[in-house]
Amino acid sequence: MVKLVGDERLDYLLAEDLRIIQSPSVFSFSLDAVLLSRFAYMPIQKGNIIDLCTGNGIVPLILSTRTKGTITGVEIQERLYDMAVRSITYNQLHNRIQLIHGDLKDMPSQLGFGKYDVVTCNPPYFSTPQKDKQNLNEHLAIARHEILCTLDDVIRVSSQLVKQGGKIALVHRPGRLVDIVEAMRKYGVEPKRIQFVYPRENKEANTLLIEGIKGGRSDLKLLPPIFVYNRENEYTEDIKKILYGDKGDRQP
Amino acid sequence: MVKLVGDERLDYLLAEDLRIIQSPSVFSFSLDAVLLSRFAYMPIQKGNIIDLCTGNGIVPLILSTRTKGTITGVEIQERLYDMAVRSITYNQLHNRIQLIHGDLKDMPSQLGFGKYDVVTCNPPYFSTPQKDKQNLNEHLAIARHEILCTLDDVIRVSSQLVKQGGKIALVHRPGRLVDIVEAMRKYGVEPKRIQFVYPRENKEANTLLIEGIKGGRSDLKLLPPIFVYNRENEYTEDIKKILYGDKGDRQP
Repeated sequence: MVKLVGDERLDYLLAEDLRIIQSPSVFSFSLDAVLLSRFAYMPIQKGNIIDLCTGNGIVPLILSTRTKGTITGVEIQERLYDMAVRSITYNQLHNRIQLIHGDLKDMPSQLGFGKYDVVTCNPPYFSTPQKDKQNLNEHLAIARHEILCTLDDVIRVSSQLVKQGGKIALVHRPGRLVDIVEAMRKYGVEPKRIQFVYPRENKEANTLLIEGIKGGRSDLKLLPPIFVYNRENEYTEDIKKILYGDKGDRQP
Repeated sequence: MVKLVGDERLDYLLAEDLRIIQSPSVFSFSLDAVLLSRFAYMPIQKGNIIDLCTGNGIVPLILSTRTKGTITGVEIQERLYDMAVRSITYNQLHNRIQLIHGDLKDMPSQLGFGKYDVVTCNPPYFSTPQKDKQNLNEHLAIARHEILCTLDDVIRVSSQLVKQGGKIALVHRPGRLVDIVEAMRKYGVEPKRIQFVYPRENKEANTLLIEGIKGGRSDLKLLPPIFVYNRENEYTEDIKKILYGDKGDRQP
């Protein structure tokens, strides 16, 4: 049994055989969060993983199928944190996923510096928000605009949380690529893997996946592009596998 | 009539109806130079364009079919400069393409600061060369390794040569992406368009095309990926068009 509040729904994560509480008016996860959860390096047997801006817990939920390590999710909005807690409980993952209601900027002093093997984050995408262009819904505005944390905050805090040699994986808009790689180097994180996601062939990329290593040496790889839709306007095989699963190809 | 020296050949540029002098032991142009010539923004009716590290003049030759502006090519190796001069003369383009035998680092003081609308460059790709890993052929070593100019030199000089609002287009290895965007910002050039070239589907990118604007504002676009080979190991339609032409789609 799960308690649903207001317009919440209990949606399926088909590829993972999990369920997640969503709400169109408060928070629904995006394909970007799923792509991040598949892109990030995961230690299979053990490790400390932390997901910042965790929202309704989508990234920790998917990561729990890829690692036996412990996963922490941090969310500043109490309403979303509460949805995440109920989803984790429903999936009986409370022993493996810990959720924290708090500001990511407080996490290094609260949780410790250099304690994590991997940091993931699907941060707000829109910088310098103008009040009149922000979403009037406060929950959605905070999730989408750099109101409570900036890109620089996310990368600084991630660098503080991760061990030397640990990995930081982000999903963002391609337009912020230069800001991201500059900030990573500023905080001692070397960009190592980048993958662009294109809505379809012959279109500009609309999503950037990037992973850096704390204290890594310069050696960047550009992974094969991901296309979301094919010429028939259907999901490509890559995306179908990510969303609906492929039992022969799953970890662990 | 054209004078060919040693193992030189007079090769065709099919898409452009031009011919170019090449030599396997001294210098042959690469697909990368052709991709750069197609990627770079060109003012159609007039403008001052300069190509650094011009080699045997491949980039100026192709650009001459895309613009009625004047094009300058700079090459430090006298042997390659001489090949370029003979190719330009053979194609009767000496009124539109000027070649300079010199060091690109001397060009701002020699040619003037902020005089160019577009700078293009296909620079040496390999940094910190170790003597024993360099090509023993001096011509090829200078063209491929940062022996006579570094990436920082190329971007600094390009920024000095270009007007405010003018464009700088480079082709390089994806692994240098972070160094390139950092150097561009350091010299007041904002990265605006990036395109990655992948040898085929599901392979990592091996070529980066990037264009920045002097004094531009932050607004980066990631153009659709280019694949070189299809699943049958043939050139893709995109590459065939670039190499062999498409009469309906040519400028000017």
